[in-house]
Amino acid sequence: MQKHDQDFIKRKNRTTVFEIIKNHSPLSRAEIARLTGMSPTTVSRIVAELDHLDFMHEIEQETTSVGRKAILLKVNPKSVLSVGVEIDKTAIRIGAVDLDGSVIGGKSIARNAEESSEATLGSIAAGINALIDDERLDRRRIVGIGVGLPGIIDHAGGKAVLSAQLGWKQADIAGLLKERTGLAAAVDNELKVKSLAEHMYGAAKGSKRSVLIGFGSGVGSSLIIDGDIYRGESNSAGEVGHTVVDPGGLRCDCGKKGCLQTYIAEAALIEQASRVKPVASLDELFQARRDGERWAADIVDRAMAFIAVTIGNVACMYNPDTVILTGKLVERYPEVRAFIAEKCMSEYVWEPLRGTFRIAYSAFEQDGVIIGSGLLAQGRFLDIASQIEQMEQN
Amino acid sequence: MQKHDQDFIKRKNRTTVFEIIKNHSPLSRAEIARLTGMSPTTVSRIVAELDHLDFMHEIEQETTSVGRKAILLKVNPKSVLSVGVEIDKTAIRIGAVDLDGSVIGGKSIARNAEESSEATLGSIAAGINALIDDERLDRRRIVGIGVGLPGIIDHAGGKAVLSAQLGWKQADIAGLLKERTGLAAAVDNELKVKSLAEHMYGAAKGSKRSVLIGFGSGVGSSLIIDGDIYRGESNSAGEVGHTVVDPGGLRCDCGKKGCLQTYIAEAALIEQASRVKPVASLDELFQARRDGERWAADIVDRAMAFIAVTIGNVACMYNPDTVILTGKLVERYPEVRAFIAEKCMSEYVWEPLRGTFRIAYSAFEQDGVIIGSGLLAQGRFLDIASQIEQMEQN
Repeated sequence: MQKHDQDFIKRKNRTTVFEIIKNHSPLSRAEIARLTGMSPTTVSRIVAELDHLDFMHEIEQETTSVGRKAILLKVNPKSVLSVGVEIDKTAIRIGAVDLDGSVIGGKSIARNAEESSEATLGSIAAGINALIDDERLDRRRIVGIGVGLPGIIDHAGGKAVLSAQLGWKQADIAGLLKERTGLAAAVDNELKVKSLAEHMYGAAKGSKRSVLIGFGSGVGSSLIIDGDIYRGESNSAGEVGHTVVDPGGLRCDCGKKGCLQTYIAEAALIEQASRVKPVASLDELFQARRDGERWAADIVDRAMAFIAVTIGNVACMYNPDTVILTGKLVERYPEVRAFIAEKCMSEYVWEPLRGTFRIAYSAFEQDGVIIGSGLLAQGRFLDIASQIEQMEQN
Repeated sequence: MQKHDQDFIKRKNRTTVFEIIKNHSPLSRAEIARLTGMSPTTVSRIVAELDHLDFMHEIEQETTSVGRKAILLKVNPKSVLSVGVEIDKTAIRIGAVDLDGSVIGGKSIARNAEESSEATLGSIAAGINALIDDERLDRRRIVGIGVGLPGIIDHAGGKAVLSAQLGWKQADIAGLLKERTGLAAAVDNELKVKSLAEHMYGAAKGSKRSVLIGFGSGVGSSLIIDGDIYRGESNSAGEVGHTVVDPGGLRCDCGKKGCLQTYIAEAALIEQASRVKPVASLDELFQARRDGERWAADIVDRAMAFIAVTIGNVACMYNPDTVILTGKLVERYPEVRAFIAEKCMSEYVWEPLRGTFRIAYSAFEQDGVIIGSGLLAQGRFLDIASQIEQMEQN
């Protein structure tokens, strides 16, 4: 056999064994041999290599039948890492993410709302380098960076096409981060990565088709089908906030009239409230409603009805098994959750769909985007055979 | 080698060769050997078997280089057939469908609007048996029946869960047709099968993600992703007609208020018009608008705006590359098409999506559901190896 054929098979076998242990652990060497069709000798050799480089651990497990201890194998979740990054208007959050979706050394950096993409990405690169030093992370184990941010993202090209919230246009995020950190970067919309985190380790684990709906500065959704983010033609699928509910309604930032988010986006609600009384935040608006102010009740009640409408409409289009809600409006105000629990299914969901899906809340809240971004990077850049070779050479 | 292993390989090789010719034709025996890795002898033997049973033809083609004629192979599209059936409120349409999506012997049968599912399926079974006799179709070549109808369809179970248009509940369509014709039947919503026809041989050929929107007695849509119908959890994905645009709006048949289809469904428009003047049909309503009647213009203009809103909203959710329009409202009235061409993209589609998709009209109109149903049945039931064996035994 040619040398490069041998190398190819070696790489392929190592990847296969690692994947099997990752997805089916804990399991024994004999089970690996059975599942892969490889010889026990080959399996034992590869397991020894993986073990030596700390990619997996042996664990002992009492077998039920005769009390004999079996040696089972389990992937070391910390043996492969990525860096997850969330960019928000006034804050950047960074953390290392392991194979189990756990965050290591999460940190927050303030961001000036007017900051250019160059300045923000400079802070991120410095933050990543500091994180690696502070946590003494092994650079060889970091497969890449994932970045989640609001806006229209060119996922394939690693660019933010337009982020109104950050004030960015055509920002080459992956290019700049690669230059400053030496690491490859995957970039996506914040809701898309958050839905991935929920699917893999959160509220939608085990779902076949889940959709995450975010009610925040805008309104958006992200559909996961069989484990993959449904992106659509230009990575813009799920833009429920810009579906029109009233062609004669209020003018949206996007130029159209009556977009759904003109009824429920944070700024829209505060603006409506301010016509009656000076109101600076959602907290004040909700407090006014609790104080029995009629105008505040009107605005909040209408917003809650439109939140329920959004859930019903998304269910009509995607027919999911799970709907996950996230964002300030649904996470911070218990009256909104109470309204959804009481009225949404029975009054706002099309009758044939009632009972076909469950409504859940984000399992991560604060860390969802970091985790999802990190998992996105792992999915895109993890190449275990190359990583092993790199570690063998050092 | 064991006899059953030999049989398995024989069946597998026959299927492979047939599929290769079907998907890459015309091509030569040598190309088949190269693409499959089979020996030229095996390929020649299988090709001879397929040719003998009329599953393919040889065609001669001048080669460009030396003028020598090459013998190329092409599947005989008429060698595999299915029966496509469309059930509408007042008519049933039946036709045989070949591998190219062509209809053979299409016929129409009147249906009493109040008819039970048993009565209608009895007529269909009789119609299918008559079609086979009239067209002298070889029963061994018919893989099964496909049925498209309006309503909520249990695709896996072959049942109509609920068809408000036909007045059916829990109708076991596949079971009854199997009993009366001996043929297996696949059942689906009419828009879903129509979108399949458009994807395979119509206006969305070559599309990666197309959506068909139907404006008729109701409003619905069907998304095709990489050649597969996106069904969702209960085969109800795409129900855009029941997305709510006005929570305080008109009561829809479904019990909710302000569903999109209360603004554009045929019956809703006629009802709105009738409040002003007795109007019995869409034709009369459109005629009144052409005659300059203000009230008719108001109703039609609002309906056209909501048609454009529907297109924009579906594009926001699915981010498709192609949107195909079908149904009476868009197919019968040139003023609606003119409005869509002039205003839809520029005024009703979210700006970042402009230019990411094209708007097209159904390539089939009348035959779309028959063709799509037939193709659905082929996709589900075609088993070329079994078919060959059956024909060898007879």
